[in-house]
Amino acid sequence: MSSPLRVTVWNENVHETNDHPRGIRGYYPDGMHGAIAAGLAEHLPDARIRTAVLSDPEHGLTDDVLADTDVLTWWGHAAHGDVADEVVDRVQRHVLGGMGLLVLHSGHFSKVFKRLLGTTCSLAWRNDGEREVVWTVDPAHPIAEGVPNPFVIERQEMYGEPFDVAPPDELVFVSWFAGGEVFRSGATWRRGKGRVFYFSPGDESYPVYHHPDVRRVLANGVRWAARPELVREPLGVTNPARRWAG
Amino acid sequence: MSSPLRVTVWNENVHETNDHPRGIRGYYPDGMHGAIAAGLAEHLPDARIRTAVLSDPEHGLTDDVLADTDVLTWWGHAAHGDVADEVVDRVQRHVLGGMGLLVLHSGHFSKVFKRLLGTTCSLAWRNDGEREVVWTVDPAHPIAEGVPNPFVIERQEMYGEPFDVAPPDELVFVSWFAGGEVFRSGATWRRGKGRVFYFSPGDESYPVYHHPDVRRVLANGVRWAARPELVREPLGVTNPARRWAG
Amino acid sequence: MSSPLRVTVWNENVHETNDHPRGIRGYYPDGMHGAIAAGLAEHLPDARIRTAVLSDPEHGLTDDVLADTDVLTWWGHAAHGDVADEVVDRVQRHVLGGMGLLVLHSGHFSKVFKRLLGTTCSLAWRNDGEREVVWTVDPAHPIAEGVPNPFVIERQEMYGEPFDVAPPDELVFVSWFAGGEVFRSGATWRRGKGRVFYFSPGDESYPVYHHPDVRRVLANGVRWAARPELVREPLGVTNPARRWAG
Amino acid sequence: MSSPLRVTVWNENVHETNDHPRGIRGYYPDGMHGAIAAGLAEHLPDARIRTAVLSDPEHGLTDDVLADTDVLTWWGHAAHGDVADEVVDRVQRHVLGGMGLLVLHSGHFSKVFKRLLGTTCSLAWRNDGEREVVWTVDPAHPIAEGVPNPFVIERQEMYGEPFDVAPPDELVFVSWFAGGEVFRSGATWRRGKGRVFYFSPGDESYPVYHHPDVRRVLANGVRWAARPELVREPLGVTNPARRWAG
Repeated sequence: MSSPLRVTVWNENVHETNDHPRGIRGYYPDGMHGAIAAGLAEHLPDARIRTAVLSDPEHGLTDDVLADTDVLTWWGHAAHGDVADEVVDRVQRHVLGGMGLLVLHSGHFSKVFKRLLGTTCSLAWRNDGEREVVWTVDPAHPIAEGVPNPFVIERQEMYGEPFDVAPPDELVFVSWFAGGEVFRSGATWRRGKGRVFYFSPGDESYPVYHHPDVRRVLANGVRWAARPELVREPLGVTNPARRWAG
Repeated sequence: MSSPLRVTVWNENVHETNDHPRGIRGYYPDGMHGAIAAGLAEHLPDARIRTAVLSDPEHGLTDDVLADTDVLTWWGHAAHGDVADEVVDRVQRHVLGGMGLLVLHSGHFSKVFKRLLGTTCSLAWRNDGEREVVWTVDPAHPIAEGVPNPFVIERQEMYGEPFDVAPPDELVFVSWFAGGEVFRSGATWRRGKGRVFYFSPGDESYPVYHHPDVRRVLANGVRWAARPELVREPLGVTNPARRWAG
Repeated sequence: MSSPLRVTVWNENVHETNDHPRGIRGYYPDGMHGAIAAGLAEHLPDARIRTAVLSDPEHGLTDDVLADTDVLTWWGHAAHGDVADEVVDRVQRHVLGGMGLLVLHSGHFSKVFKRLLGTTCSLAWRNDGEREVVWTVDPAHPIAEGVPNPFVIERQEMYGEPFDVAPPDELVFVSWFAGGEVFRSGATWRRGKGRVFYFSPGDESYPVYHHPDVRRVLANGVRWAARPELVREPLGVTNPARRWAG
Repeated sequence: MSSPLRVTVWNENVHETNDHPRGIRGYYPDGMHGAIAAGLAEHLPDARIRTAVLSDPEHGLTDDVLADTDVLTWWGHAAHGDVADEVVDRVQRHVLGGMGLLVLHSGHFSKVFKRLLGTTCSLAWRNDGEREVVWTVDPAHPIAEGVPNPFVIERQEMYGEPFDVAPPDELVFVSWFAGGEVFRSGATWRRGKGRVFYFSPGDESYPVYHHPDVRRVLANGVRWAARPELVREPLGVTNPARRWAG
């Protein structure tokens, strides 16, 4: 019998707290973290899902919480700079030790994503409420399971190429935006013992985390990134004795 | 007519300054940086090669120097922690903007390499003066051009797997050490507009940078990593106007 | 409740039939396929494991058999040329449709492996009964789970670099042979909807498929390559109607 | 002084011969091969560029011609099945030996491309004269040098995902088509000692090979794929003597 999957949904929760954009509390009454957690619960009924926000002590991401987390999802935008470096170090260490990480939308500019990828993670953007069409380029990838190809998000912020990331290990989704841009909207990287999935749909201005296909992708991503069987410890330096004469 | 290649050979120069290991000034009278620069000059007679060390103001790596550098080589070991974060930021920014970077031997633990890869960069090691046999696994790679397969370094520090790096884009060399270990001793990564090559042979205890095949690899690496045709600027955020109706 | 994993263990069975090398029937009384199947059964007690050999009608690999196979393992050496092209086409089509494939040892020169990789798949070899030490370079890979790092095979044929394969998507194991060579002994490729794992240990001259760690790797490989959830159909051409005005 | 680059532009030349689509002789009076060769000559004035077509003896691709070719470009569509397997074998062997290969547009279904990639190479298509917008996702790639981002082809056949290719080593361009589809329109693969670049723009129904940015990409691709310094010989099997005792 396997243990339940343990997921921590993190959100800076700044847009919601400030009611900015005005009306966000209408479509996200429990915050984006609430909507994301609810979406995961739909698809992962046995999972233990908790939420944490920036204003929590240690942003809600103590070593105990992370040690009890198979997969962490990360949403940030307005307050990347307010995330304590110590917490970033800790999250990175847990990822390298085997914790899965889903970085969402504007989280592309989070400290932890830039830390893991080594690049600027910059991109083109335009907030014009455009249609986004998400195409699957790797239909056999577990994260694409059961996801219509394509699926449509009627209103979204545009994110466009070039997206300055380390070359992904796997490219799963590519989006088209009505204004003409394209974007590698779903991609994965291995770092240490951990798996990282970036998924771009999801903006504070539009109720994207209620979209059934987005929810399916996130749940698939969590399942894919979870490695509860690993000993949660980054690879370390060793100094072995000589075993063969050579 | 193309401009001469501009190379900066950086060395912390701590072992040499401290005469530790005792005798290092014998086989490296001009420091490891001096030997590396001389090796490059053999193969790249038209290149402008300078050296810089930790004790120079700003470690010799001002913005002007980096702007005038096509490829930077990095040797560090005893004093990784003494490299100023501001200089690390600067080097990273230049790499993302298109400067080539060769990370050598114990430079695997340098701040800048860990910054670009996002992992611990840890490995197994043993300093027992073992034979290292360097095998080419990608004979068509420009970095392997003219390099005997294999070549032998009679005495070297052992570096062994697992080497906790982001998955390389290209694997060029794999080494065997007499005590039985293997190591991905030559590998490349693209980061932003820049090219990074890690090459493990080269320890302060052995005169490895006088080895003709090691010198050939380093010169090949410099040629491969140089991208003087690029505008030296990391990719940045843009906010383009909408061009199509969609 | 999930269905049992369906594995087909294929062997040309020529060495065994010809008692060549002399004595092979002693350490492989049921053929290499028998030993491989027994090793898988140890680790995958619920799996339905069958065997098939070259001399079976259609080499035992009819469309019905393949449609009922989640993962096929392939051992061939003396009779690669006797495998019917029609069967090779069929196996390739099933792999592209989602069937897992484990290619073993001298299977590197099988028609189907060369077909999927596009390269010569050539390598260096020497049959001198040397010690092979198998190192894990990606300890978090599911195929490495529970596998000692390193593990030792006391007598094996040497396979050495350069191994002329398409660049692997994931490198899991690198071996050292006592004579000095190294080899990428465990690597994976995605092709269509299918997953391919090549694992080099296992020669007709030595009882390698009785080695507990080899058996563990093979069972891990089968588990990793199995994708029973996929519709077994290669991706095909489509001619969709226009959906947006653009 | 380096030798001139040697390029062979291959075209099945069936559409042109049959004047199908009607009018093709108007915009391609010298065939698509003529237009491609002229475009390359613009950017590579020192190159020796020849053309060859399906109806030539041995399709114009004798061993002597290929041995005298640094980079081969391939356009085929209506007559893939008429290309002799012997010539396909020969082209593959030269690619594995270091000849560059540019596969253009409907060449995705050529025997040689499928042979090198191992997959179906299928895709979605619609010939509706749609606008194609080609975005650069890797601005530092040599193939993207001097190419506007994006550039626009006013009328093109749509090619859409999923594109069933082996995962590219490098993704350079992604296209959007007015009807909503996206496509990995420029990608590279290493095979043996050779470099392969696939570029999708270019259809017999539209004068795409007169487009200045398409011509620039093709010339960049040729320069990138050329490896005249390599000994033209695929990697082969070796049986080295034992060198170390181990």
